[in-house]
Amino acid sequence: MDNPFLVEVMRGNLVESRHRGSISVVDAEGATVLSIGDVDRRVFPRSAVKALQAMPLVESGIADKYGLTDEEIALACASHSGEPEHVAVAQAMLAKAGQDVGCLECGVHWPMGESANRALAASGKTPSALHNNCSGKHAGFICLACGQGQSPKGYVGADHPVQRMVRETLEEITGACHSIDKSGIDGCSIPTYAVKLPSLAFGFARFGTGIGLPGDGKAAAARIRKAVARHPFMVAGTGRFDTNLMGYLGERAFVKVGAEGVYCASFPELGYGVALKADDGNARAAEAMMAGLVLRFLDLSHDERKAVEALAQPVFKNWNGIEVGQIRLTPEIAGGA
Amino acid sequence: MDNPFLVEVMRGNLVESRHRGSISVVDAEGATVLSIGDVDRRVFPRSAVKALQAMPLVESGIADKYGLTDEEIALACASHSGEPEHVAVAQAMLAKAGQDVGCLECGVHWPMGESANRALAASGKTPSALHNNCSGKHAGFICLACGQGQSPKGYVGADHPVQRMVRETLEEITGACHSIDKSGIDGCSIPTYAVKLPSLAFGFARFGTGIGLPGDGKAAAARIRKAVARHPFMVAGTGRFDTNLMGYLGERAFVKVGAEGVYCASFPELGYGVALKADDGNARAAEAMMAGLVLRFLDLSHDERKAVEALAQPVFKNWNGIEVGQIRLTPEIAGGA
Repeated sequence: MDNPFLVEVMRGNLVESRHRGSISVVDAEGATVLSIGDVDRRVFPRSAVKALQAMPLVESGIADKYGLTDEEIALACASHSGEPEHVAVAQAMLAKAGQDVGCLECGVHWPMGESANRALAASGKTPSALHNNCSGKHAGFICLACGQGQSPKGYVGADHPVQRMVRETLEEITGACHSIDKSGIDGCSIPTYAVKLPSLAFGFARFGTGIGLPGDGKAAAARIRKAVARHPFMVAGTGRFDTNLMGYLGERAFVKVGAEGVYCASFPELGYGVALKADDGNARAAEAMMAGLVLRFLDLSHDERKAVEALAQPVFKNWNGIEVGQIRLTPEIAGGA
Repeated sequence: MDNPFLVEVMRGNLVESRHRGSISVVDAEGATVLSIGDVDRRVFPRSAVKALQAMPLVESGIADKYGLTDEEIALACASHSGEPEHVAVAQAMLAKAGQDVGCLECGVHWPMGESANRALAASGKTPSALHNNCSGKHAGFICLACGQGQSPKGYVGADHPVQRMVRETLEEITGACHSIDKSGIDGCSIPTYAVKLPSLAFGFARFGTGIGLPGDGKAAAARIRKAVARHPFMVAGTGRFDTNLMGYLGERAFVKVGAEGVYCASFPELGYGVALKADDGNARAAEAMMAGLVLRFLDLSHDERKAVEALAQPVFKNWNGIEVGQIRLTPEIAGGA
């Protein structure tokens, strides 16, 4: 099955590039709300499920045991830009577990955020694992291990108690089998399990509503959603899509990007979960698709609509500030409503 | 017509993302050697035609009038990384025409090369238009204007004598109509004209052989090819695909990347020209496709083949140096031979 064109990149009045993709929107009982393209193909959710991966930290009571703040819980769900505030919060989380940067197993990279990158270079320093966009998630894993009296050493491995717990949680919430033979290794070295978009969408419908979540899952999900809505800067950073969108909409939309063109979202007031992937892995396409779905499903005020439209169909300017093109959604995704 | 999948991005043993594209390979008489996908769709060649855009500078005798070196001619064809050597050569070209950075109309951006970017930030400086990846091409345009006794002011405009000359040259070499109603504005503010891949491939077959080029075109093309083959660093930069590939193969392959997944090439010994586009505009796909065509058509030594294979199907490592995936060409492009 060929996935349809969902996003066009215009230059002047011609289409310069085109992106295909697939989308699943599901309600908290698992009923299909919208299905576009081949949703039976397994995708690696990558960082789009970080909020689900943070559930054991909160649900276990360890977030409370260490007195984690809303900012810290938001950072545990983040693909952050490595700005100084992100680095400081990751460090504070580790300190609460009696640990430091040496415990992080995510690897080191220069800050994802361009300004943060250059500011660090200008300071004459080099990055640490705290600058890794996943350092908050990893600090959360380390808190989870330490809070249970386990050694955090090797916490990225599929067989470490932390990853076993994370995997069980992902299976519980999405209802999908997360098997090692359909897994890969993520950029930050933890396993990522390939599952189908409707399973991810179902997981985020439940995460957004609490419906069907066992144990203290409902309260944990609500706490994570609230923490992120209060601190959208923490989950991404300056100028980033997730930070901007949740800055506009607060708790009305929980959205999270993953590498290679994946996005997941919860629209709690509708009870919907969303999962999508741009075939080619391109983030600009995935962002436009997600903004298009927000426009399609949520009842927005005039100002909210204008703000989200600018994310859905951004205009490109060149180095001289001349408008040279625009992202455009195809009728298939923009249409509906 | 649906373009086929040409490049797969693997994570573990699963396909994570996929790229479709179209390819045209044509000989210097215009006969089709290979055609994949919809080659009737117009594409913006963007920076992939910089070598053709540099033809008037050389053919007019102005490169000689100003005593431009091979390095400078190579930089006129470049999308460079903004490394100090690139900046210095662009500045020297402008000085030969009695001009300086204030004359450049390409706009300012931080160096494309990550190390150059951070080194500039660490130095406490900010970028100038010399760091723009197109500064060499623009310095060439300014030489062309000044060498003909014209004011360079406004040289990026479609109606300036420089852009009229460039457009005529593109039409002559490719045989395709370059019309304003099918044009867009490029990142560096000059017009880019949408044409079909076989026209671009035909142009590069002629550029690679000199066959059918009017006037002194044959000598000018040979000089540009030689200059780039001697200084492949100048057309791109440290670690870049074009620099590496031409570093391995010298004059056997002239290759040039363009934005949004376009690539053009000449294989002079075969008399072939190549033009391709990844539908989604992704550079990793376009690079893999181009390397795949080099492997398919050129008779390479064992060492050359190994080097080009590493460009065609690169292995990805994560931040901890663990192999997590690989680019793979589909049989459609790798097959043949």
